[in-house]
Amino acid sequence: MSYNNENVFAKILRGELPCFKIYEDAHSLAFMDIMPQAAGHALVIPKYPAETLAELPLEFATPLLSTVQKVMAAQKQVLGATGVVLMQLNGTEAGQTVPHLHFHLIPAHLRNLKAHGAEQGDMAEIKAQAEALSAALL
Amino acid sequence: MSYNNENVFAKILRGELPCFKIYEDAHSLAFMDIMPQAAGHALVIPKYPAETLAELPLEFATPLLSTVQKVMAAQKQVLGATGVVLMQLNGTEAGQTVPHLHFHLIPAHLRNLKAHGAEQGDMAEIKAQAEALSAALL
Repeated sequence: MSYNNENVFAKILRGELPCFKIYEDAHSLAFMDIMPQAAGHALVIPKYPAETLAELPLEFATPLLSTVQKVMAAQKQVLGATGVVLMQLNGTEAGQTVPHLHFHLIPAHLRNLKAHGAEQGDMAEIKAQAEALSAALL
Repeated sequence: MSYNNENVFAKILRGELPCFKIYEDAHSLAFMDIMPQAAGHALVIPKYPAETLAELPLEFATPLLSTVQKVMAAQKQVLGATGVVLMQLNGTEAGQTVPHLHFHLIPAHLRNLKAHGAEQGDMAEIKAQAEALSAALL
């Protein structure tokens, strides 16, 4: 697999497309999934051109997991999320739709998730969630 | 949340229950899920008493991700897995059934997964998969 620089998350990382940002540091970015499988559905991505987890250099493990923990804590605090599904799809053959490694953090029960990448959510609602989650991480 | 030392994965880590082991090092253990959601469904767990990802010390991030990458590579090599779903459920409210942090690595498309934790698989088949995956990691 060769990384495709024109995927939407690469464009978000370069600032060429907007996102509802929750958190950012030197190694990672967290933002809202605009096709949420449940309210508060967030994504965490590395600032590294990996298509799947297989291509991620191990030096990104700690900063990525740290960001995942931060976002999960914010989901718990802001949304009262008592359960969070972490999902990460490797390859189109697994259902991956954007070819840049991303961790889904979905504050819901597995059995209640909407379909993956199926339907755009209410953008005003998603923006408000991003602002609340972001504020919790300041 | 307080960690329950009597959960089945804690017993596996202490050697009080058997497992179909794939890989083990100082910080992590990989073994087969005996209720597979697809053929070759593996689990990776830390050797640390964390119930969910929130309680995992960050020093486990690199060794855990390293083991996840190893097992995914073995699934690709041995099973010809072109897509792998990584799933990790935080809290019973997300659908978590065993209260020890675990990463599911399921070599299948998201839409084809069997229900989580629902039905025991063919133990002879699972044993053979574990042996083949384990051999690929020697």
